[in-house]
Amino acid sequence: MSEVRVLLLPGDGIGPEVLAEARALLEALGPATGLRFSFSDDLIGGAAIDAYGTPLREETIEAARQSDAVLLGAVGGPKWDYLPKATRPEAGLLGLRKELGLFANLRPVKVFDALADASPLKPEIVRGVDLLVVRELTGGLYFGQPSELVRGPEGRRAVDTLPYTEAEIARIVDLAFRLARERRRKVTSVDKANVLNTSQLWREVATEVASRYPEVTLEHALVDSCAMRLVSRPRDFDVLVMENLFGDILSDEAAVLAGSLGMLPSASLHGAPPSRPGSPARLFGLYEPVHGSAPDIAGRGIANPIGAILSAAMLLRWTLGQEAAATAVEAAVADVLDAGIRTADLAGSGTQPVGTAEFGRLVRERA
Amino acid sequence: MSEVRVLLLPGDGIGPEVLAEARALLEALGPATGLRFSFSDDLIGGAAIDAYGTPLREETIEAARQSDAVLLGAVGGPKWDYLPKATRPEAGLLGLRKELGLFANLRPVKVFDALADASPLKPEIVRGVDLLVVRELTGGLYFGQPSELVRGPEGRRAVDTLPYTEAEIARIVDLAFRLARERRRKVTSVDKANVLNTSQLWREVATEVASRYPEVTLEHALVDSCAMRLVSRPRDFDVLVMENLFGDILSDEAAVLAGSLGMLPSASLHGAPPSRPGSPARLFGLYEPVHGSAPDIAGRGIANPIGAILSAAMLLRWTLGQEAAATAVEAAVADVLDAGIRTADLAGSGTQPVGTAEFGRLVRERA
Ligand SMILES: CC(C)[C@H](C(=O)O)[C@@H](O)C(=O)O
Ligand SMILES: CC(C)[C@H](C(=O)O)[C@@H](O)C(=O)O
Repeated sequence: MSEVRVLLLPGDGIGPEVLAEARALLEALGPATGLRFSFSDDLIGGAAIDAYGTPLREETIEAARQSDAVLLGAVGGPKWDYLPKATRPEAGLLGLRKELGLFANLRPVKVFDALADASPLKPEIVRGVDLLVVRELTGGLYFGQPSELVRGPEGRRAVDTLPYTEAEIARIVDLAFRLARERRRKVTSVDKANVLNTSQLWREVATEVASRYPEVTLEHALVDSCAMRLVSRPRDFDVLVMENLFGDILSDEAAVLAGSLGMLPSASLHGAPPSRPGSPARLFGLYEPVHGSAPDIAGRGIANPIGAILSAAMLLRWTLGQEAAATAVEAAVADVLDAGIRTADLAGSGTQPVGTAEFGRLVRERA
Repeated sequence: MSEVRVLLLPGDGIGPEVLAEARALLEALGPATGLRFSFSDDLIGGAAIDAYGTPLREETIEAARQSDAVLLGAVGGPKWDYLPKATRPEAGLLGLRKELGLFANLRPVKVFDALADASPLKPEIVRGVDLLVVRELTGGLYFGQPSELVRGPEGRRAVDTLPYTEAEIARIVDLAFRLARERRRKVTSVDKANVLNTSQLWREVATEVASRYPEVTLEHALVDSCAMRLVSRPRDFDVLVMENLFGDILSDEAAVLAGSLGMLPSASLHGAPPSRPGSPARLFGLYEPVHGSAPDIAGRGIANPIGAILSAAMLLRWTLGQEAAATAVEAAVADVLDAGIRTADLAGSGTQPVGTAEFGRLVRERA
């Protein structure tokens, strides 16, 4: 039996509750996959601030480096909002992404048939949506210098910097094309090329990368009009690729398609997945639900664990090459939803409400 | 009779077609309002590039300065996409905004009852939506320096800069509060304060401004989660205020609520409207529909003129203080829609399709 070392970083708010279900799922899948998961855990975000006075310790980064994958819950909460940006819970997450070189953030949005009516959008608009946002994660405004807030004699002023190099753009766009090749073969590259220099470069490089993938169609879209199309014609999209902040905004927007932010998983990778699935090489990844720490419902056992569970499925797929097991987990989630079982965020007439742990158990039973 | 000088800048694509209806409407309203509109016109954007080799001439800026208001159609199109950013049609619009100091962009999104079912969102989500996006228009990434694309020996790199001063933030947030005071008394200030320094400053200043308006509620929202709420719970919002690029993205997204981008008007102002409507002082403004030049349907007489017509209504309201006339125009548009009359973008079963000019005529008849 091959050992898989997973570092658990539950973080804040509902993080621990949903991560418990992801962990239990992986453990349950051990026998079938021939894998033995060994878990270690550590604090990050607000929890780490409270315990150690910093949102991310060196030891934690090192522990992540020693692991095959990291499963993260969520970070942040109003409790730590008074802190300056650099020492807030979010800085822990950003530091981890940067330190580990996780430049590729994959955020799939797939609408489960049972939830086609759960979204604020009309069912005929969202049914069948299956798109993938590929977000650049270690560049742009999140990390550019200068980045400062100056309290000077003439008043306060602040600046953030949006830099991109051709190499940073090429590697993420290339990864998007590789993924599109295995999907419906369309890439939408999102930018604001009519205003931003970084976007002009982005568009140039995307066009160059596209020439290496003649079987994949490239379409350029301006971020403003894409924000509109994403909710008006979401089935237009297969793979979308964009810079860090655009990806932050548009992937959250796309979450409404799925009916609840609680549904969505993500993977942050430092390279392209091997083109042959099942290859023995493991690709390190950080897996986390897209949702936040939801302090208002934390500790009540009612959070939706699907985002965390589907993140575990992504771990099986991208780090371990276990496509069959990943698909089985996704099918199990669909099954539970088809049976009318829902957590509170998705509750509606004719459905049966359950808590976080019970939902997790029902998925494991079917996976 | 008091004279009102309006500079018409039809621009590209469907710009001229929709602007013709806005002009005709203002002319028709002359007698009732005691105003005599005198129009001049000029080229901007691609049309100006073709005629003069530049998207915005000095003469045009000067003509705008000599006017009480500018009515603009739309700029841009694939024909000019090969040009570098600085000489493209869009640069004409950005130059005009900057030269005229139009820092406040008002983008109201009001869902007409007759169109509650025209949006991709469920009618129960959009019915009754009445929000106002107040977008900062002359700062941030659109104008920050350095802004460059360098083709160096080590490859290409680009940078854009996002700067804000306390004064820039205070004046736009203050304007948002003034407007909210006359509405439902709620301001949502949108930022990314957990990552950006400019957003931290934005949040600080917004909080300070709010203390001068105890009767108005201030709520802070992160741009990512706001992008989600905007489509999932749009009735939560009254006035939203945000920096330039966030405003670009979120106002286009909000357009889906209205059923068609063709519906939406905008006003770009260089100061707060006088608090007493009907005051004789005129506030200079640039009025334009939010939609683009739509080259694919240009010249066919089928474009939706509502965005342009409602922009003329905003001109009546904000530059001329003619609240009654503005409301009459909005009511006339609602009437025509209630009668089941639609342009092609909104056509559906049980509705009667008409062209741009006919729609404009029907609105004038009722205004
Ligand atoms: C918590 C925050 C810093 C983070 C981001 O903006 O990247 C979050 O919104 C996300 O999308 O993962
Ligand atoms: C044409 C473009 C430069 C412009 C902008 O981004 O401001 C447009 O999208 C708008 O929203 O008015």
